[in-house]
Amino acid sequence: MYIIGIDIGGMSVKGGIVNENGDILFKLSVGTKATSDYKIIVSDIVELINKLLSISNKDVGDIEGIGFGIPGTIDSKRGVIVYSNNINFVDVPIVEAMHEYYPNVKVAINNDANAAALGETKFGLAKDVKNLIFVTLGTGVGTGIIIDGKLFEGNGSAGAEGGHTVICVDGERCSCGRRGCFEAYASATALVRQTKAAIDKNPKTRMISLANQKGKISGRTAFLAAAEGDKAAREVVDKYIQYVGEGIVNLANIFRPELILIGGGISNEGDALILPLQEFMDKKCYGMINGNPRVLVQKASLTNDAGILGAASLIL
Amino acid sequence: MYIIGIDIGGMSVKGGIVNENGDILFKLSVGTKATSDYKIIVSDIVELINKLLSISNKDVGDIEGIGFGIPGTIDSKRGVIVYSNNINFVDVPIVEAMHEYYPNVKVAINNDANAAALGETKFGLAKDVKNLIFVTLGTGVGTGIIIDGKLFEGNGSAGAEGGHTVICVDGERCSCGRRGCFEAYASATALVRQTKAAIDKNPKTRMISLANQKGKISGRTAFLAAAEGDKAAREVVDKYIQYVGEGIVNLANIFRPELILIGGGISNEGDALILPLQEFMDKKCYGMINGNPRVLVQKASLTNDAGILGAASLIL
Repeated sequence: MYIIGIDIGGMSVKGGIVNENGDILFKLSVGTKATSDYKIIVSDIVELINKLLSISNKDVGDIEGIGFGIPGTIDSKRGVIVYSNNINFVDVPIVEAMHEYYPNVKVAINNDANAAALGETKFGLAKDVKNLIFVTLGTGVGTGIIIDGKLFEGNGSAGAEGGHTVICVDGERCSCGRRGCFEAYASATALVRQTKAAIDKNPKTRMISLANQKGKISGRTAFLAAAEGDKAAREVVDKYIQYVGEGIVNLANIFRPELILIGGGISNEGDALILPLQEFMDKKCYGMINGNPRVLVQKASLTNDAGILGAASLIL
Repeated sequence: MYIIGIDIGGMSVKGGIVNENGDILFKLSVGTKATSDYKIIVSDIVELINKLLSISNKDVGDIEGIGFGIPGTIDSKRGVIVYSNNINFVDVPIVEAMHEYYPNVKVAINNDANAAALGETKFGLAKDVKNLIFVTLGTGVGTGIIIDGKLFEGNGSAGAEGGHTVICVDGERCSCGRRGCFEAYASATALVRQTKAAIDKNPKTRMISLANQKGKISGRTAFLAAAEGDKAAREVVDKYIQYVGEGIVNLANIFRPELILIGGGISNEGDALILPLQEFMDKKCYGMINGNPRVLVQKASLTNDAGILGAASLIL
């Protein structure tokens, strides 16, 4: 059985041909013409799919289906991209558009964080996990929620927006129009802002030379300087971990999953991020005194291929 | 068909005999011996049930089941009260204890907010609603969550603790050990604290004479004074409504229910609370620009009998 997984991002569209074990046989990518008409993007995707079929010596009839992971608000039932922040997608009937090219192939779409969560349960670390929250710490904060083995999307696929829950009333402005969202404190974007503010206040911090070496302040700057013993950087990292911690404990108190997986760029900090998050969870999660099941926090397992495998898992 | 619904509270145990339409035929109550051994409380409950059967001329064989709504952490599957804040209940096997008295009767237990949520879908305003969040604004803040017509309790019945999600990082201390929980800002207890703080700062506010008339500051004080045009009270009420609003928009962004019902003592403020909450929801809920379904906010419908009817609904 073969599936094609397509991971649409603001910068590039990545595609892979995947078997039932989650092995990626071949993968390709193409730049996203983010400001173009959606039909142009669709035609680029079709070309990508045809190339994947060709290099793997497969015919469209060999394919079980094509899954799409897409950032933004996705109506998975109607097969429509309702809205995507970074790409010119507004009410795009992408499933219908794909069926014009591949009339007899199953096509499934979902939000990229939802797809990544499902991917972890099909091909990754969460294979035996029934209740999972997947949190991506990237440009924004996305959350994918698995309840009893199934993707939970909310009424009209419009829920599961854990990044847009306020953790600091009247706090930092968020792209969604509110103030103080989890995303506005726990995204890579937010960490860069927090790092900048600390640099402005601490003219001798190691973060400055590290940022100069790399030519910019990134989500890594504070973590690297903290690892070298820089006090201002340690404060940034500790506070950032608290923000992430508050958000994931909130989700744990609502869903009480067995596992929370952390993905996205910041998750590459590994133990320096994950271990203190687990400690925070153990200390703060509601009613832990009463022998309630512990909520584990781990790094997402599919890393670079999470997008393709998540998209592919939508077909299973 | 007849059901007995038992609503256990810190002050009293209320019981009612209910038919399939949610009519309460008879109801009785007894003081809760909150600090006594659970077996004494159970024996008081059995006496209450026997009285209900007797005054309604029913036999235990006429009863479909007995449902219990209980504040605290309830393991509904095992039939155990894991922990209750206000009553001396720790790991109480209450279903087993009831079966000693009524061996052949179905007994179901759940958290009181969960039971109230279910009650609204069986007997109240939410009869045709598939996805509901019930929020009680009382001594604490409880949340009951209905997904696709079914009660959602989280893994091990340990979830659905929406009152214990932080909305103000490093904010007011909460009974759960964290700082800044929704409960610490949106409960009646919190509103009283906010009202006291405003009185301390405004020696001429109408809230003082209103509190003196009643002999205490209550959750009503600020609402009453605001309705009379008192500026300091209006500020308290507006800020309180924002706190409630932030919490319910957070839940809406995660679950995107059709309806959010507000219960508990503060819900008796009616339109003065509900209308601005609806306005807040319409303005702040994620992605409303894209024709996503609107989330309605209404006052809970079962009011005084919500506890008994919620408990009874657990049997259906």
